[in-house]
Amino acid sequence: MSRYRLSLAYDGSHFSGWAVQPGQRTVQGVLGEILKTLFCEEINVTAAGRTDAGVHALCQTVHVDLETSWNNSQIAYRINAILPDDIILSQVQNVAEDFHSRYSCLAKQYIYRVANTPTPPLFERDFVSWERRPLSLVKIREAAKDLEGEHDFKSFMNVGREVDTSVRKVYRVRVKRSHGEIIISVLGAGFLYNQVRIMAGTLINVGLEKTKPEDVKMIRDSLDRSQAGQTAHAKGLCLNKTIYKGDKSEGMLP
Amino acid sequence: MSRYRLSLAYDGSHFSGWAVQPGQRTVQGVLGEILKTLFCEEINVTAAGRTDAGVHALCQTVHVDLETSWNNSQIAYRINAILPDDIILSQVQNVAEDFHSRYSCLAKQYIYRVANTPTPPLFERDFVSWERRPLSLVKIREAAKDLEGEHDFKSFMNVGREVDTSVRKVYRVRVKRSHGEIIISVLGAGFLYNQVRIMAGTLINVGLEKTKPEDVKMIRDSLDRSQAGQTAHAKGLCLNKTIYKGDKSEGMLP
Repeated sequence: MSRYRLSLAYDGSHFSGWAVQPGQRTVQGVLGEILKTLFCEEINVTAAGRTDAGVHALCQTVHVDLETSWNNSQIAYRINAILPDDIILSQVQNVAEDFHSRYSCLAKQYIYRVANTPTPPLFERDFVSWERRPLSLVKIREAAKDLEGEHDFKSFMNVGREVDTSVRKVYRVRVKRSHGEIIISVLGAGFLYNQVRIMAGTLINVGLEKTKPEDVKMIRDSLDRSQAGQTAHAKGLCLNKTIYKGDKSEGMLP
Repeated sequence: MSRYRLSLAYDGSHFSGWAVQPGQRTVQGVLGEILKTLFCEEINVTAAGRTDAGVHALCQTVHVDLETSWNNSQIAYRINAILPDDIILSQVQNVAEDFHSRYSCLAKQYIYRVANTPTPPLFERDFVSWERRPLSLVKIREAAKDLEGEHDFKSFMNVGREVDTSVRKVYRVRVKRSHGEIIISVLGAGFLYNQVRIMAGTLINVGLEKTKPEDVKMIRDSLDRSQAGQTAHAKGLCLNKTIYKGDKSEGMLP
């Protein structure tokens, strides 16, 4: 029995999110069924982080324990051959027994995309949210600074969730405009439930000048969810990177 | 009653092509129904060119005759408000009575996209075909030259279609590699049925070194469909531009 690290990409549009739910099509459920078919036993599938319905992943990390004589490219080939076309297994790596996709994960990067164009997005419509009114990049960037650092992000957490602590460390929030889109990238050690989408919703309000950039610090410090913006649409969010010790992307961390 | 030029973009994935067909979801059918609803009468919808099932359009041109007091932006707004999310009306313009989307069209540009990557495309999978084996850009470019010019393109026409002449004028075939894709753009005065897809299929064979670049001229001159490559997948094709007198894009023509 050896531990493997699997890197997955998926289009979340037609999944009820990552985690298995009875009667729902989920990424964990589909992958689990495929592994069971291939390896003839129940296999636990653990991810770096759960993604919600409609949220995409370019690089989700999973660990699994497998008893097999296949090499890594044979494993990848066989799994990809039966995966549906909205999930891709991009890499299989051997890892130590104590590697854990969730607990060993040093940081995650999420990307939030908003099409900021007069007409709605067409070819990209499942992967971006849409705001017709002009968004101010300068103001969003100004506000984004106050979402960096180690803070209690309780204002940016869905109410009704219980957690030990709502303090999280956000290493970096970058915002750019590209091809008519506002793209927000958030790198952090970990995130609260819906944190990135609520941060995005709040920053969109700043871009629309409904909220002043200097008010974002106040919203953050209020520890009051009702002060922050709405939870931005799931389809604009993508889990872009999951970073572990020894990965090339470890260089992105401070 | 005035004539209007409508510029449409659509994701062809869930349409049985452009032209109305009983019991099928088509772009012409959907647009016709919407115009009937808005203007309370049957309205003829004529396009620059028909597109097949699965083929996309970034700029399809349509002309319609409407009796209305709405201005162009009101027309665009009202139509877009009820169009499904896979069609977008990007522009409404007033045109002369004798403007005809098909007969006045000076040229069309199609783009054919092939993802040339070890793993299949994910987010782009409805808009590109996929070839895992490496394609030679140099060889495709060399062969593409023999598909430019005024020629009898009978080898690149679906058999069983009757046309007055299979001579067509192709102004330019450009090929580039970008983000792991081979992108073939074809500009021509007009095209035979499936011509661009058969040209693409033939060029893919050249890229795979199944066909020599210098054989493409011979294939063309054979006037024999069976000599050319297969019809490349519909989903890789997009009607990118439709060019009329006075358009900015008229400058692309020789």
